[in-house]
Amino acid sequence: MNENILGLVAGRITSVSMLPQLFKVLKQKDAKDLSWLMICTLIVGLSLWVWYGFLHHEWPIILSNAFAVLVNICLLISYFVYREK
Amino acid sequence: MNENILGLVAGRITSVSMLPQLFKVLKQKDAKDLSWLMICTLIVGLSLWVWYGFLHHEWPIILSNAFAVLVNICLLISYFVYREK
Repeated sequence: MNENILGLVAGRITSVSMLPQLFKVLKQKDAKDLSWLMICTLIVGLSLWVWYGFLHHEWPIILSNAFAVLVNICLLISYFVYREK
Repeated sequence: MNENILGLVAGRITSVSMLPQLFKVLKQKDAKDLSWLMICTLIVGLSLWVWYGFLHHEWPIILSNAFAVLVNICLLISYFVYREK
């Protein structure tokens, strides 16, 4: 497989990976088994990747990680809304 | 911040991000709120990053993503062990 395509595919898959978790929490309205520390660590790490992408002017890194940050912020909000149910 | 150090820090943080989730599942022996699809998607995406790292001979990419794959495989096993409890 072409190396650049491989990188793009890997980036897309990892950036959408938290969507099934977000959908599951929103559907079940239950999130007590989730770790808020995992979500916060991901938000910090992915935000640093966005910063890294800006420094390198690499839009694929910026966009895929910014999307993942957004998904994880939604997941964190959902966690605090639904963890007690 | 130096760009390479930023990339290394971002890689370290994202690669350890699932550890708090694994520890929480092992401690609570409960995982029903987790999405197996999220874990499987992560394993596929991160494995592709390991492959990408091999093609580019970039050991930091290989090691940090291989570690994350290992953590997610442990999480997937824990999910199937504890989801019914």
